[in-house]
Formats: sequence, structure tokens, C-alpha cells
Amino acid sequence: MIPLPGLPELEEGDDLAALIAEAAARAGGLEADDIVVVAQKAVSKVEGRVVRLADVEPSTRADALAGDTGDPRHVEVILRESAEIVRARPPLLIAETHHGFVCASAGVDASNAKGPDTVILLPVDPDASAAALRHRLDELTGIAPGVIVSDSFGRAWRQGTTDVALGVAGITALRDLRGTRDASGHELRSTMIAVADEIAGAAELVMGKSEGVPAAIVRGLDAAGAGSGADLVMPRARDLFR
Amino acid sequence: MIPLPGLPELEEGDDLAALIAEAAARAGGLEADDIVVVAQKAVSKVEGRVVRLADVEPSTRADALAGDTGDPRHVEVILRESAEIVRARPPLLIAETHHGFVCASAGVDASNAKGPDTVILLPVDPDASAAALRHRLDELTGIAPGVIVSDSFGRAWRQGTTDVALGVAGITALRDLRGTRDASGHELRSTMIAVADEIAGAAELVMGKSEGVPAAIVRGLDAAGAGSGADLVMPRARDLFR
Repeated sequence: MIPLPGLPELEEGDDLAALIAEAAARAGGLEADDIVVVAQKAVSKVEGRVVRLADVEPSTRADALAGDTGDPRHVEVILRESAEIVRARPPLLIAETHHGFVCASAGVDASNAKGPDTVILLPVDPDASAAALRHRLDELTGIAPGVIVSDSFGRAWRQGTTDVALGVAGITALRDLRGTRDASGHELRSTMIAVADEIAGAAELVMGKSEGVPAAIVRGLDAAGAGSGADLVMPRARDLFR
Repeated sequence: MIPLPGLPELEEGDDLAALIAEAAARAGGLEADDIVVVAQKAVSKVEGRVVRLADVEPSTRADALAGDTGDPRHVEVILRESAEIVRARPPLLIAETHHGFVCASAGVDASNAKGPDTVILLPVDPDASAAALRHRLDELTGIAPGVIVSDSFGRAWRQGTTDVALGVAGITALRDLRGTRDASGHELRSTMIAVADEIAGAAELVMGKSEGVPAAIVRGLDAAGAGSGADLVMPRARDLFR
């Protein structure tokens, strides 16, 4: 796990891959089979997924859901990013995004935002964001690393967030062990491991949350593959909690 | 991340800490501030948390919940380990254990079990298991590493398991950033990071599931603290999904 500090404050249109490549060069350079984990907020900023609350007119539903302490304009943005509100305990909203992610506030976040009156949305297509970063890093460095676009998600039943993979390129997201046998020779049933989520969580340990380190390299794992962040979303038909 | 392969098949009463210390010595030895992650099944086996299904008389409720494909004796063991069944789609059961963990089958698992007719239960007190391993490793090596007893849990809304921390000793389980400020100077609200879960997930990446590597060393993280696995269980009053 190699943190990549020293990235500047990001603006829409910045060449994030170039900034990551420079930070990686300072850390000794990318190597074949490296995985680059990038915080969703960094990706969203360069993709312009930033909303000024002054431009948002809250609906009556947003007013109601904001409760006494929430900002109705912030809630309005959450509603626009949501396919469904899964649970509401104002001002806490657990929502399913249009991508199918279930998370607090539909991923709309004020922390690390660009000023007190802005919020940051999730990328429109995190897998495409990851693929574009991978392609551009290959152009710049001659190495096409695995890429994960990560975010901090809460979990049902457990305290605290862990970082998970929203978008993935060049690696396996879900390792499927069904049909393989364990060390005792028993067939493993229904065992799928969310390796991309575990990698994202591992990278969080060196990226921190308040230290301005929006990316890290994970080295030495054999995870090459053609996975996607969508692999990690539980299909509705199998979901017992929606 | 340093995997610790080469542990023998474990039996009740085995000195697991001694076997881990030997495996660590083969890998260059423990260092100060190391964290040792140990798979729950290894801990449960040496603690004798193994049940022979031939000795189990299923209740009528177990018969009903087993459906057409489950083993009613296995379901009976799950019911005994459960404080509450959270969801049932036979033969899949999501249960809250007596510890408060919400997971598939109340953590009762047949894979890697000692023979086709046995199942393995979670440790009675995973924090105590972790503390005992830490104490014994200190006796044997002069180093008291952080210890995590880990298990693979499914998640609501997301596919695949990630390893999480059931029991913890000598490290922080939940890093509380409330009241701190992010890189832009904004106060972070309600941000708690489940670092012990992220560490357990990271260790899974080198432990694998079917390769007989029940432990790993995580080195180079500053995570010393007095956390517990219980810190990671969402209090019922704050839980929107029970």
C-alpha cells in the first residue's frame, strides 16, 4: 500500500491521471499489475459533479425530509440522485442511487466540498471513470494499472464506514469460489469474495480521510481481470433488504 | 501483508498462538506494532466450538426453516446460536447472534469443518479470544501484537463477502473523526471509520479462502489502541435495518 500525497486542489477538467502519474513517479513509479485506488471525490471534482446549493430549489418533499436540522437544498440534491429512498430518519437518508448503490445521502457529500455551499455527487458512471483513468495512465506511463474508484459507505448492522469500490477497471471485482474446494476438500458453496471492496478498504488505511491523500497504489496482488463495480451491486431479486 | 501458511490441521486445545508464532518466525518474526489477523474458524476449532450434526435433534421450527434443500440439524444449530432471525429465505437465514453480529447462518459454517457431519460455531467471546492470543503471543515472543479474529460476512445490498473483525485486542476498531477537519478545513460530521474491518478485509486478500492460510501479519499501520469487536456492532437504537 503506497499512499500518493501531494495532489493539488482539483478543478473540473483537470487531468487527474496526469496528477496521479506525477505522484506515482515521486513514489518510485507505477509497476505492472499495480492497482491505483482513487477517492470518488477526486474523480467527481474533475468530472464537474459539483452542485452549488444556491442554485437548488427544494421541493416540498425535500423540505419534509430535511427535518429540523438538515438543509432542504442538500436533501433536494439527494432526491435527484436517488432511484429510491430506502430508509429515512431525518436528516439521515439511506438511498438507492440511479447506479443501484445503496448508501447514505445517495453519495451526495458536503465534506471536502469546494466551499461551504457546494455538494459533490457520485460520478455518473464510475466504471467508465475507472476505465478512462486506466487508459490515460497507460498513455502517460506505458502501464495500464487496475483502477478502483472508491467511496466510504456505511453498512447495515455495523458501525463505521469502510471504503468500497464504486467503479473498477482492469481487475476482478468479485472472486467466485463456487465449485472450488477448501483445504479440507469440501466444496465451497456460494462463496463469492468482494475483492475490489477489500482492496478499496485496504487503500483507505493509507489514504486516511482528512489528510488530503486521494489516491494510493496497491502492489503485489494478482487481481487482473475484467470486473466492474456493477458486479458488486446485489441484484434486486436476490436482495433481502430492499 | 504477510500471509502465514503452514499451520497444521487444528484440534481442540491446540496452542494456536504457538503455531502462529512458529509460522511468523518462518516469515521473519513478529515486529512491534504488527497486527495478527486470525481466521475465526482456526480460533473456533482450538476452542472446541465444533458440533457433530449426529448429536443434534432438530426442532419443528428448524424443520420448517430448512426448506427442501437445507439440513434441519444445521438449521437447529443456527437457531441455538441466534438471538433473532432477521431474514429467512430457506435455506438462507440471516440471523443476529447472541454477540449482536448480523450475518448468514449466525456464523455457523460447514465449510472447512472437521468432516462432513460437523459444523463450526463462532467463538463465544471473540474479543476474549483475541486478547488471549495477544497475551500468549507476548509470552512466547516478547511482542504483544494487535490481534483481530476475522470472519467473512455478506453485506446488505452488495454482492460478495468481505472479511470483518469479530474480536479485537490491542488496536483501535473504530477511528472516530467526528470533530476533526478535512483537508479543506470543513468539520467532518459523523465520520467513523471501521479500521479493524478494513484491516481484516485487507488480510483476507493474502489469506485466501481455500488455501489453508488461517492467519496473516499486517505491518506498518499505526493502529494501536484499546478497541473491541463490540465497537463495530451497530447499537440497536441506531440501527435502521433490524
